[in-house]
Amino acid sequence: MNSFDFRGLSAFPLTPTSEAGIDERAVAIMVERAVRAGVDSIGALGSTGGYAYLDREQRRRVTRAAVNAAAGTPVMAGIGALRTLHVRQYADDAQAEGAAAVPLAPVSYQRLTDDEVFGLYEDISAAVSVPICVYDNPATTGFAFSDELHAAITGLPNVAAVKIPPAPAEDAAERITALRNALRPGTVIGVSGDWFAAPALNAGADAWFSVVAGVFPGYAVAITRAALDGAESEASRLSAELEPLWALFRRHGSLRVMAAAGELLGLTAGPSLPRPLRGLDQDARHTLEDTLRRLGLLR
Amino acid sequence: MNSFDFRGLSAFPLTPTSEAGIDERAVAIMVERAVRAGVDSIGALGSTGGYAYLDREQRRRVTRAAVNAAAGTPVMAGIGALRTLHVRQYADDAQAEGAAAVPLAPVSYQRLTDDEVFGLYEDISAAVSVPICVYDNPATTGFAFSDELHAAITGLPNVAAVKIPPAPAEDAAERITALRNALRPGTVIGVSGDWFAAPALNAGADAWFSVVAGVFPGYAVAITRAALDGAESEASRLSAELEPLWALFRRHGSLRVMAAAGELLGLTAGPSLPRPLRGLDQDARHTLEDTLRRLGLLR
Repeated sequence: MNSFDFRGLSAFPLTPTSEAGIDERAVAIMVERAVRAGVDSIGALGSTGGYAYLDREQRRRVTRAAVNAAAGTPVMAGIGALRTLHVRQYADDAQAEGAAAVPLAPVSYQRLTDDEVFGLYEDISAAVSVPICVYDNPATTGFAFSDELHAAITGLPNVAAVKIPPAPAEDAAERITALRNALRPGTVIGVSGDWFAAPALNAGADAWFSVVAGVFPGYAVAITRAALDGAESEASRLSAELEPLWALFRRHGSLRVMAAAGELLGLTAGPSLPRPLRGLDQDARHTLEDTLRRLGLLR
Repeated sequence: MNSFDFRGLSAFPLTPTSEAGIDERAVAIMVERAVRAGVDSIGALGSTGGYAYLDREQRRRVTRAAVNAAAGTPVMAGIGALRTLHVRQYADDAQAEGAAAVPLAPVSYQRLTDDEVFGLYEDISAAVSVPICVYDNPATTGFAFSDELHAAITGLPNVAAVKIPPAPAEDAAERITALRNALRPGTVIGVSGDWFAAPALNAGADAWFSVVAGVFPGYAVAITRAALDGAESEASRLSAELEPLWALFRRHGSLRVMAAAGELLGLTAGPSLPRPLRGLDQDARHTLEDTLRRLGLLR
């Protein structure tokens, strides 16, 4: 296992995708912006990077574009798929393209049992030489991890981090503490659901796997630095400023909102989501544009 | 639109799948058994046929094997996929291979909005010349249809049937009546969740999309004939005899149970599910074997 450190801020760029294909140039631009802003790592092919919608060759191209654009900043590359057979192939490809770590979600069609999910991580843990992050995202996978299952999986070789979904802000301390007590000591705890990042980092989470940082890395770097330096109230204040954006994330899904933001910024042409996914409608797009202007994120 | 009639009993064969590939010969055997037993149609590439786990070429091969083995009994072939682009390709392939109808589920990774799901059916309805069945299966797709959305979709050209998930038996009449009142007149209402079939057919549902009929068609034919001939209590009695099997379906998922049954019958070699899916464990397998012997379904 190499020495990749999941801690800090990881920016998850979009993979703009239309019926005609993927826009790797836009991925590279987003990665360069994030690296310049000082993120700790890049998370290519996360849920935000649309990995589930991309074929093997497209995933390779996105990983390659991200690794090249990151210019030394480490890149994680998601490897989730419905079949273990394909997860293995994506893991091989990710490593061949220079990914420093591999997030893995238990993507499902048939609901998976705990034994099946453990078996998936067991199979992949034996097949990789870079660290795995357990990607716990019940909204997309339909699978809910127990802390006991997380504990068992983090006992496997090469499993170094767990990324958890958002909880209510007031439960952050209890949630992080309970998970910390369950996991193998040293396991990195990362969080997603950008509105949950400040409360969770303030409560002792180690890492933020950030959607907003893929397009607007500045705010996310400031929130992360404040929280990890112990300036809790500053982290909370900055996150509260973004609440109008978090509200749009919760309402429309962060992917749809950031895809529209990427189009508004001119980072990519629209439509940038693969059908049947659709972008925001005109009303929501106007609300987003207003919100971004008020926050100084759009001129 | 051709004249395929969704009404009656449709048998959904397994597609035995291992890391080495698919077993088309087993598909053909299951289809022949079902046709001999007198089912009204075959549902290849349903959830039970593992369509979500198969690539384009494998789906083509399964459809071809089923159409050939069905020898004139009409075959539906599932076309669901995460991307509309791929659904279109599968629809083209299904029609080219002789499928008489195409069930379509709104497979998701990112949760879909009602507008996105309507858009999916709109796009595919314009692209096919065989009838579509809306495949409502929230346990696998993560998407819950409202009756209003069902009504809107059944107003599209080529959408001829809706398959609904199981409800509690005592709610069957209310459920079927409410849906019937919402849908375009003439839309076929099919049900899944095999334990729900007798109550739903007795309450006026038109079709049973049956997992058990893929492996044990005899009982399913008898239940369907009784219910559709107005012999309600006979349908209920036969279904009640199978309650020990339904209990295993609800506990382990009907796919895992039928995959083990297919192996016990010697229809295919094990393992017959693609990883990360695993078959039943030894205890559950013994319970299944006992259950099938008591029901006279295994010698």
